[in-house]
Amino acid sequence: MTHALNLSQLLNTADAQARKAEIDTLRNLHPSDIAEALEESQALPTQVVEILLEVGNHKAVDAFAQLSIETQEDCLEAGNAQTMLRFVENMEPDDRVDLLKAVDDEVREDIMPLIAQAERNAIRKLWQYAEGTAGAVMTTEYAMLSKDLTVAEALAQLRLQAPNKETIYYIYIADQLRRLIGTISLRDLIMSKPHASLARIMETNLISVPHDMDIEEVATVFSKYDLLAVPVVDKENRLLGIITVDDVLDIMEAESTEDFQRISAVVPFDEEYFRRPFPRLFWSRFIWLAVLLFTSLISTTIMEANQEALHQMIALSFFIPMVMGTCGNAGTQSATMIVRGMALGEIEIKDLGRVFRRELLMGLALGAALGLFAYFRVFLQDHHVLLGFIVASALVATLLTANLIGAMLPLILKKIKLDPALTAGPFIATIIDAVGIAIYFKIALLLMGTFQG
Amino acid sequence: MTHALNLSQLLNTADAQARKAEIDTLRNLHPSDIAEALEESQALPTQVVEILLEVGNHKAVDAFAQLSIETQEDCLEAGNAQTMLRFVENMEPDDRVDLLKAVDDEVREDIMPLIAQAERNAIRKLWQYAEGTAGAVMTTEYAMLSKDLTVAEALAQLRLQAPNKETIYYIYIADQLRRLIGTISLRDLIMSKPHASLARIMETNLISVPHDMDIEEVATVFSKYDLLAVPVVDKENRLLGIITVDDVLDIMEAESTEDFQRISAVVPFDEEYFRRPFPRLFWSRFIWLAVLLFTSLISTTIMEANQEALHQMIALSFFIPMVMGTCGNAGTQSATMIVRGMALGEIEIKDLGRVFRRELLMGLALGAALGLFAYFRVFLQDHHVLLGFIVASALVATLLTANLIGAMLPLILKKIKLDPALTAGPFIATIIDAVGIAIYFKIALLLMGTFQG
Repeated sequence: MTHALNLSQLLNTADAQARKAEIDTLRNLHPSDIAEALEESQALPTQVVEILLEVGNHKAVDAFAQLSIETQEDCLEAGNAQTMLRFVENMEPDDRVDLLKAVDDEVREDIMPLIAQAERNAIRKLWQYAEGTAGAVMTTEYAMLSKDLTVAEALAQLRLQAPNKETIYYIYIADQLRRLIGTISLRDLIMSKPHASLARIMETNLISVPHDMDIEEVATVFSKYDLLAVPVVDKENRLLGIITVDDVLDIMEAESTEDFQRISAVVPFDEEYFRRPFPRLFWSRFIWLAVLLFTSLISTTIMEANQEALHQMIALSFFIPMVMGTCGNAGTQSATMIVRGMALGEIEIKDLGRVFRRELLMGLALGAALGLFAYFRVFLQDHHVLLGFIVASALVATLLTANLIGAMLPLILKKIKLDPALTAGPFIATIIDAVGIAIYFKIALLLMGTFQG
Repeated sequence: MTHALNLSQLLNTADAQARKAEIDTLRNLHPSDIAEALEESQALPTQVVEILLEVGNHKAVDAFAQLSIETQEDCLEAGNAQTMLRFVENMEPDDRVDLLKAVDDEVREDIMPLIAQAERNAIRKLWQYAEGTAGAVMTTEYAMLSKDLTVAEALAQLRLQAPNKETIYYIYIADQLRRLIGTISLRDLIMSKPHASLARIMETNLISVPHDMDIEEVATVFSKYDLLAVPVVDKENRLLGIITVDDVLDIMEAESTEDFQRISAVVPFDEEYFRRPFPRLFWSRFIWLAVLLFTSLISTTIMEANQEALHQMIALSFFIPMVMGTCGNAGTQSATMIVRGMALGEIEIKDLGRVFRRELLMGLALGAALGLFAYFRVFLQDHHVLLGFIVASALVATLLTANLIGAMLPLILKKIKLDPALTAGPFIATIIDAVGIAIYFKIALLLMGTFQG
């Protein structure tokens, strides 16, 4: 699958013949593979532009479109506007806007006047949509036809419009006010009789998304309805653009990366690992670690407050890692399940009571089973009945609490309109730790008082 | 978007008129919405079958195909083979095989003889592919044409074959030995002159995947090349089937759920949260928690071995949650970044040295910055220089170790052909905790010996 190519020779050779042979090899690759080879070669931006110009054909512009936005940005800032114009003009409208937003103001001001008027208008329209919404990832290239055409006329028009590969598979029908009234898939168009009118064969029971819908939600619409593209509309149901499935795949990949970063306490970033400069990588990690360090000092403070109990029974401290670890794990388990279930639409706010009852029972069951384990570990190894009793009952209580916090918090966050996924992060885990330690000492003091006092 | 419908009335009414009205409402919904309404209604399997039969038209069979596999299984086991045949026959071949694998042997033996011979052969072929491979998710329905046809003839043949909506967008060309020699997108077919021969316009530089490729890898092929479908071939490059993008979306969603379950220490399961019976949910959580509890007892044992140090300086125990938490977080950060980078192809085994140097430096930088914080916390609050020095240097050492373990382990696991994602799980975090505590006491004893002895 991967035609990983070593471009270092191409970059360093002065031999015109060898260089030509390498460029010919590149020309035979898929544009995505050319882009990958360029990214991996660590070529300078000017070298990337040079190589693409030498490759020369339509594959070069397609390969440029497949480069990461950071590389595109570097190339655009390194090349001159006149040279870069054809690369930028060939990009999909939504990607082009992202790139133009990313580059330096002067680079943008150099290239904008060179772009055709119609495209400039499209750029201005797309510019306004907030990142992370349907409007920001839609393309303004789509096939729109009148409902009065016949199938044969529609096919003839399509051939003239020659929409590109991602956007031809649905044809959109709008009324005079550009309000979307129907769609026809290319399949149905081909399967229909040439003289049938579009009005008769179009699907009017259509799926569309509002321009301000969150892109994660757009992804679930795609997977629910098995779509290849979805129209994006404004409040008056006017067609603004379409989102194609290839963009949705990229979005899902990026969202999944972001979720992993959040879950692992890294401030989310877009660049590839090696492309993120060291100081910026340091900061995206340091900030979270520092916040978590300060939060974990709550646990330290609680232990300091309970040092009397520790002095009396130093063995209490031995089981803190186990109690903290177990209740952290149980809380993460329930939080992740609920967050994921909410993301997939399986669990809603109205299920709060049902989740509470289920996780209360689950916490008790897990606590009882694991508490028994812990009791025997302490009893068999340390022959200390009271300590075993303290550790086991503290485990039940903290586990139950952690489990309920983990399960309820996502639903509560959702209710107050915050992102439930915040729960999955380590910040909550650290808070749960502190609560766990507090409960542990409370129970220890209580039992020590009862049995010793 | 969601036409969430309350079917409880439909399920409980004896009023034929009211029931008819509800069925009519269902008939106007998208099949995916009918399926969703049925899933949410918690209707009995026999009721689901009844309602689908009443809805009656093509939407009913499409809705059945959209139900979760557990519901399909229940319906198939509740209905009789003759009734269920049309639902099963309408399913996509890969989903049908999954369903037939899931149901009781008897149910399968009842329905198999009723299925048409050609379909039965397809079922047998798909049956053999291992779960999680390209072969297991491909469909055997695709459009295959001869390279000697003209574009006009090809369109006429397509109309006759009438492939369904997901499988029409690429046409595959094979030689006499069924070896794949080219593809044509429906778009290119429509854009070409009617008299051109397929041999001339077909794309011969094609992307295909072997039948035993891991489905996660198939998903990255889709997103890299922006595909709507990909052909699956055997070792001799013979066409076995195709995978369509709608299946890839579902796979990515399922994989992502599985990753979250793994990261949160739940034994992966497929069912929705509320559909997983309590005892099975208990086990998928309990097993991991018990394993982790035992692992975390290593930390307890290390602390017991160091109780002399604790007796001398009980304050050492106060900072254990902070040191453990911080080094666990740092290890998770580096592990998740490396695992994700490897999944996206940004980091490879050959980068091991580069990752090591980067994370060594990063660990030192983070350790130094956070160690300074920790030192001042101890010094300012407890006015204890030695303790501050112990905590700070232990933090640097454990953080450095945890960071390197987190970064190196995924690459090492990959090298010995294990799944790097295992690192992201809490098992490794618990091991890192134990290593961290051991280092903490080692340093504490060393410094106490130096400054006090």
